Amino acid sequence: MHLFYQPGVDSPGVNSSDPVEFLSEDDSRHAVKTLRLGIGELIAVTDGHGNQYTAVITKADARRCTFRITSTKTTLPRPFSVRICVAPTKNLDRIEWFVEKAVEVGIERISFFFGQHSERRVLKLERLEKIAIAAMKQSLQSFLPILDEALSVGELLKTIQEEQRFIAHLPSVDSPGVDLPVHLAKAASIAGQYAVLIGPEGDFAEKEIQQAVAAGFQMVTLGPNRLRTETAALTACQFLNFINA
Amino acid sequence: MHLFYQPGVDSPGVNSSDPVEFLSEDDSRHAVKTLRLGIGELIAVTDGHGNQYTAVITKADARRCTFRITSTKTTLPRPFSVRICVAPTKNLDRIEWFVEKAVEVGIERISFFFGQHSERRVLKLERLEKIAIAAMKQSLQSFLPILDEALSVGELLKTIQEEQRFIAHLPSVDSPGVDLPVHLAKAASIAGQYAVLIGPEGDFAEKEIQQAVAAGFQMVTLGPNRLRTETAALTACQFLNFINA
Repeated sequence: MHLFYQPGVDSPGVNSSDPVEFLSEDDSRHAVKTLRLGIGELIAVTDGHGNQYTAVITKADARRCTFRITSTKTTLPRPFSVRICVAPTKNLDRIEWFVEKAVEVGIERISFFFGQHSERRVLKLERLEKIAIAAMKQSLQSFLPILDEALSVGELLKTIQEEQRFIAHLPSVDSPGVDLPVHLAKAASIAGQYAVLIGPEGDFAEKEIQQAVAAGFQMVTLGPNRLRTETAALTACQFLNFINA
Repeated sequence: MHLFYQPGVDSPGVNSSDPVEFLSEDDSRHAVKTLRLGIGELIAVTDGHGNQYTAVITKADARRCTFRITSTKTTLPRPFSVRICVAPTKNLDRIEWFVEKAVEVGIERISFFFGQHSERRVLKLERLEKIAIAAMKQSLQSFLPILDEALSVGELLKTIQEEQRFIAHLPSVDSPGVDLPVHLAKAASIAGQYAVLIGPEGDFAEKEIQQAVAAGFQMVTLGPNRLRTETAALTACQFLNFINA
């Protein structure tokens, strides 16, 4: 059964003017034209807030496919939350890839920031939001993670509510002997609200690290290898999901 | 200091005809033309077998940059090994991405196979090997993982020497109530030699699952979400790296 996304589903506040449930234009086209679904066929629809509905198509209209809900399944949020704060990569593919994969494996929030050493200074969320929605559907989840517009490190730090705060700082390449900071997976305690800062390709500026530490961020490592920005960001998700598995 | 790859470095067997150490043509061009490195400058060179050499450039030739080794550092293999057996994705980008990321986070061997439901029937290793080398250099590692030509599931199973064998099988989408197989991270014991089978986009054929189980593969899950082939493959690496961290 195919999963569709309709944030307004079964929400009188949103659809009150129109009690009939319907798919977005994109999803209507996908359902009717691509999947050739017809009247009476079953679909699944999520509102992206934990509710997943089983529904039957009542009008197979490629611009406005309507449906009637037959059952509801509500998923509770995870007993922990992962917020990754990451600097967009110079190559957009890499950050798009991170968003797709992070949503697949499970994440609550992605907050972007421009660091002093960031090569990329512009980031449009629209395409990333489409990627997040597609990944949510593809992995059959009922929660759509929040994507935040890019801020400066200083502005970003003001928005951090999570109590467990970590900053992934690269071990220096040319000093193999030096002690690494503690591993994220050891530093984090389970069932927490986590915020992890992942630096840009040019790494954090010393001042940014000091700002983060002053804001209660603990320096952690993600392992012995030097990871690309998007790999480090996904690895942080995986480790936090893992300790809570 | 930049890391280069020269499988024949410091191996009389390979370079006996020419005792002078030199970088490959690609690396020579990169060192001399792109990085503008000159005589007397320090570079790092790995043989991909655990040895990393610090060396000084003796001839800054863009086609054949020569160097003299000044020190050697030998890294031991990890006390465990991860071999992922995966069906190439229809979209090559996805499997190329997996190879890059798996090498970055750490993997010993990637074996490809064509499943009964595989949409892709051809796979050229050359480009994937280049990606693996680039990722090894980028993550500053001294071991180049093995990439195996794609085989059928039957042929692949004959090549499995690893004692801990797992097959990631998707929980059925439409039976949320059903018990999941045990999680890979719980099924695997530490310090092992692992082989994990990851199915194609169309999943394994029933017969292939039976073949694998008959060959000693234990069915495992990678979590509640339905993961794409390449995401599942990387997640398996991450979990096995994690339990051994």
